[in-house]
Amino acid sequence: MKNRIVTISREFGSGGRTIGKAVAQKLGIPCFDAEIIQKIAQESGFSEGYIREAGEYTPGGVLANVFSNRANGPTNEDYLWKIQYQIITELARKESCVIVGRCADYILRDTADCLKVFIHADMDFRGKRIVEVYGEREASPEQRLKDKDKRRAAYHRFYTNMKWGQSQNYHITLDSGVLGLERCAEIICSLY
Amino acid sequence: MKNRIVTISREFGSGGRTIGKAVAQKLGIPCFDAEIIQKIAQESGFSEGYIREAGEYTPGGVLANVFSNRANGPTNEDYLWKIQYQIITELARKESCVIVGRCADYILRDTADCLKVFIHADMDFRGKRIVEVYGEREASPEQRLKDKDKRRAAYHRFYTNMKWGQSQNYHITLDSGVLGLERCAEIICSLY
Repeated sequence: MKNRIVTISREFGSGGRTIGKAVAQKLGIPCFDAEIIQKIAQESGFSEGYIREAGEYTPGGVLANVFSNRANGPTNEDYLWKIQYQIITELARKESCVIVGRCADYILRDTADCLKVFIHADMDFRGKRIVEVYGEREASPEQRLKDKDKRRAAYHRFYTNMKWGQSQNYHITLDSGVLGLERCAEIICSLY
Repeated sequence: MKNRIVTISREFGSGGRTIGKAVAQKLGIPCFDAEIIQKIAQESGFSEGYIREAGEYTPGGVLANVFSNRANGPTNEDYLWKIQYQIITELARKESCVIVGRCADYILRDTADCLKVFIHADMDFRGKRIVEVYGEREASPEQRLKDKDKRRAAYHRFYTNMKWGQSQNYHITLDSGVLGLERCAEIICSLY
């Protein structure tokens, strides 16, 4: 029997990772996020910091140029995507778990029984939250959010050809700012 | 105190109306869908059939031309939108209720305390359902679904300037095909 996996995609600052951990704890199954990054790092030889940046975001700057140089063969991002793909497939084969981010919903589409979740919240909620969780930066919270969202969406679109945040791509989407993180976790657990 | 309104937007055939009625029954509040159409009909003098068609869909055919003749003043659709707007605002002011479709989430954005829901399901589920509920037609179920979805999305976009089905526009979106109608109704009630 296929393992049951909860995949959580999320807007930056929406608390998706916190919700994922709460869900995993309630269900008594592991939650993978930073762990995956470390595993990728170990297996690929890339530095962890580089992978964290390149593993889910397209490089900053002009998006149109980001993935334009395939004439020279696969990019580092392509290698990372492949390694990530293998690790996530392996994790899902091994046991039931929660996987936050990393396009796991797409990667596992044919090989696992997934509950596909998307978490979002408005700018105001997320702006306050990223300052609390990650501290102040030179850029305004709003600018940081817009930049991260844009890069996640572009990465997701490039590798999965699916629209990030489009409700039809998920079994359930939740506004964590209005509903609250705890409530979101409860609803997800009730559907597992 | 503002009344508490559940607004349900839905893909054609996803069971959004059935879910809305179940939610209303569980919560002991009224559900408006066909009732609104009738009320619109009574107040406007338009025939009910015409309003059902024009009240939520853009006219068929080439979408680009649908709303293009405003140089000649407001269209019938514009009048219907205005009447609909007034009726929905009035219903929400009067009592807590469930309102299915009719862009109620947008109409009530500043005047009511809304739980904004979007219901969707895949083509296969909806195709079977519309044949069960509405019977066979000359066009294939898939063609009927695509046509209706396209017209609802265009109508919503024109009058609200919001993207229909984009998760960020709702507090919760649910895949009724995977989760089941009954389960969707329970979750919505638990959030009310």
